Amino acid sequence: MFMDRIKPRTLSGFMELLPGRQAQMERFLQVLRETYALYGFTPLDTPIIEDAQILLAKGGGETEKQIYRFQKGDSDLALRFDLTVPLAKYVALHYGELTFPFRRFQIGKVYRGERAQRGRFREFYQADIDVIGDGKLDILNEAEIPAIIYGAFSRLGLRRFQIRVNNRKILNGFYGMLGLTEQSGAVMRTVDKLDKIGPEKVRTLLTEDVGISPDNADEILKFIAIDGDNSAVLAALEQYRGKNELFDQGLEELTAVTRHLAAFGVPEDHFKVDLTIARGLDYYTGTVYETAMLDHPEIGSICSGGRYDNLAEYYTDKPLPGVGISIGVTRLFYVLEEQGYLNDSVITAPADALVLPMTDDMGPAIAAATALRNAGIRTQIYTEPKKFKAKMSYCAKLGIPYAVLIGEDEIAAGTVAVKNFETGVQVTVTPQEAAGLILEGLNVKNSGPVIRDGE
Amino acid sequence: MFMDRIKPRTLSGFMELLPGRQAQMERFLQVLRETYALYGFTPLDTPIIEDAQILLAKGGGETEKQIYRFQKGDSDLALRFDLTVPLAKYVALHYGELTFPFRRFQIGKVYRGERAQRGRFREFYQADIDVIGDGKLDILNEAEIPAIIYGAFSRLGLRRFQIRVNNRKILNGFYGMLGLTEQSGAVMRTVDKLDKIGPEKVRTLLTEDVGISPDNADEILKFIAIDGDNSAVLAALEQYRGKNELFDQGLEELTAVTRHLAAFGVPEDHFKVDLTIARGLDYYTGTVYETAMLDHPEIGSICSGGRYDNLAEYYTDKPLPGVGISIGVTRLFYVLEEQGYLNDSVITAPADALVLPMTDDMGPAIAAATALRNAGIRTQIYTEPKKFKAKMSYCAKLGIPYAVLIGEDEIAAGTVAVKNFETGVQVTVTPQEAAGLILEGLNVKNSGPVIRDGE
Repeated sequence: MFMDRIKPRTLSGFMELLPGRQAQMERFLQVLRETYALYGFTPLDTPIIEDAQILLAKGGGETEKQIYRFQKGDSDLALRFDLTVPLAKYVALHYGELTFPFRRFQIGKVYRGERAQRGRFREFYQADIDVIGDGKLDILNEAEIPAIIYGAFSRLGLRRFQIRVNNRKILNGFYGMLGLTEQSGAVMRTVDKLDKIGPEKVRTLLTEDVGISPDNADEILKFIAIDGDNSAVLAALEQYRGKNELFDQGLEELTAVTRHLAAFGVPEDHFKVDLTIARGLDYYTGTVYETAMLDHPEIGSICSGGRYDNLAEYYTDKPLPGVGISIGVTRLFYVLEEQGYLNDSVITAPADALVLPMTDDMGPAIAAATALRNAGIRTQIYTEPKKFKAKMSYCAKLGIPYAVLIGEDEIAAGTVAVKNFETGVQVTVTPQEAAGLILEGLNVKNSGPVIRDGE
Repeated sequence: MFMDRIKPRTLSGFMELLPGRQAQMERFLQVLRETYALYGFTPLDTPIIEDAQILLAKGGGETEKQIYRFQKGDSDLALRFDLTVPLAKYVALHYGELTFPFRRFQIGKVYRGERAQRGRFREFYQADIDVIGDGKLDILNEAEIPAIIYGAFSRLGLRRFQIRVNNRKILNGFYGMLGLTEQSGAVMRTVDKLDKIGPEKVRTLLTEDVGISPDNADEILKFIAIDGDNSAVLAALEQYRGKNELFDQGLEELTAVTRHLAAFGVPEDHFKVDLTIARGLDYYTGTVYETAMLDHPEIGSICSGGRYDNLAEYYTDKPLPGVGISIGVTRLFYVLEEQGYLNDSVITAPADALVLPMTDDMGPAIAAATALRNAGIRTQIYTEPKKFKAKMSYCAKLGIPYAVLIGEDEIAAGTVAVKNFETGVQVTVTPQEAAGLILEGLNVKNSGPVIRDGE
């Protein structure tokens, strides 16, 4: 039959992984799900398509340009571009049916029609958690977030990372002291460039572009130069106390957030008070978080978020303060692969055991596979009538760790031959013994983390 | 601040669950993931957006009307409407990098702009498995599918279901015997209505609408009336052997598919050879599967699929035969909820334990929560400065099974008070003992299946 064929392709900016890599991604997502659940967050799933008016309630800016928006019938629809706006809608819509504080996690795809370039994705997973209060939300929630970030990345296997924390009230309070409340947004955006352009250029931009007096610029540079361990930074901030109410409140909060790190199990060296962190969005009103990979500062923050006062103001008059963080999973996974961080020694094969029938009688092979599956072992039966060599090569190509051979001798004796592909050792045992043997080996092989960082 | 608020809403035809229900859905999906993995299928994830030309390569029909299709820049895009077309694209695109037989599962959202009505969804999860061969694929793969269907639904907790199997070669071969090869499509579509309209009306439609002779119509009705246990049906089919090559081949295949049911662990009463099953799609060429809920025939098949000869003919000249099944998860979950099948006794709370600090000193409460989390217990700290009664009521409302109270006495003694909400029993123990106690209780509480079918 003649047919016009279409060349298959995947759109650029859309991640599509080969099976082995996908298996690693699945583990990655599973670790995040488990960690978020461990901290008492409930999983949510909201539609990818929403009413465009609702998604764009806040409106304006980059969002509007990047959004996938289209008509279907009479409906003006759009694909979600983050998980926060759908959460705001969800909480406003189901307010009466939820119990507050409401703690949810959501891991799902979001869509932004950015200019395609290497390492940038138009479809990508975000992994978010948020705690939403009804009217009020205690600072303890902000104090717990670093523990969750630490828990997630350390369970993934990452070691060389640091959670960096600041408080917007401290920044806004400080700018208030200098009489720069009006300009605080522009000042923060400028200060944010410190890492990239250095203090001299920041000073120039502050005085020339933002119109700050030289004295104030010096005060700002002195302030953001405050550094040292957490207690040293907090001590330096105490010098400013009593001059601005907002500042004092921010300092209380920052002190509270650092106070319980040890009880939360966060090592001191994985947490740093960093006065240069502001997070661009006006949205944040208290604690703000970024997470840096110490050996790859160029990647930027791999987990960010903060405290906000009003999650759903576009949909409801109920004040809904909250705190949340987000991991841009797809980009992070891409970078980890590029930088060689993915642990390729964990099993990524579709199965743990491949049963190879060596005779025409399939019954015993099927029964053996059923026994292994009942023991919880991911088992495939090799189904094709190929030569022994081809069967073994299939097993090796996929990286299936165990081959279970069932020939005439084994059928007669009611046994199976188990070959460990790593050691080359082959033993003949009962199907029950085979299951025990394989499970033991899998425990070892699957004990490694998703990420290999250091030795 | 005055603001024009937008009334929050979720689009009709889009499922959005409350947290408790969502927790059940997550378990549901997790059981499917685990079952599919147990049979040696590798997880895949492909983009939700694809090039519209590629998705519509086959073209025509309902698909084209229902698809979400839109322009973004110069690109003609569409949302996937199933997981089979993206699989075909994937296998054609990555052919050289895959190892065959290629076994993949995919659980993901698909989109169809159907007319909205109760129980119909425009965004819904499909949970698919497929085995793809390179040029050839042994019948053993078709024989294994009922085991996977049985494994999935029995792990979910469903009992009263039956997997119904037929073979298109038997049907096409039989129509060939009658000289009705040309009309076989129309005949099968008519016969498919048997359950709904009965044999008399089928006979009328066959003779009047399809133009079949009365003798042939009688032959057809006699054929599809063949019933009984599997061996009786196979014995009846043996009567037709030797008259048509395709029929004989189909009978061989059907016999092979039924031969190993016991070895695969499928009970005889959960499997039925059913000659009325045809599956509408021309796509299928061999074994076809449907799965019926015995107490709810009106729901239709809850898991269907079959053998096909050419997965990716629109994208490649490589012959890629395969066999696959699909579960329409969202609709099934909706029906199970409607019919009261969801097991509400499993834990659907966001946490297993709620730590309640009873003093202003948060340190010991945080330390206790950290210990519980390290033991794998999903733990939330109650953070708000509310009255005891409000804290307990929060715990009860969410259905969190254990409250862990930490007051002055407990802090002084280094203990915690664990209250079991179900029994009302409260004991004072060390944090380690608390973890042991709670884990033991959770093992029992979490042992129930997702679906409760009979007792």
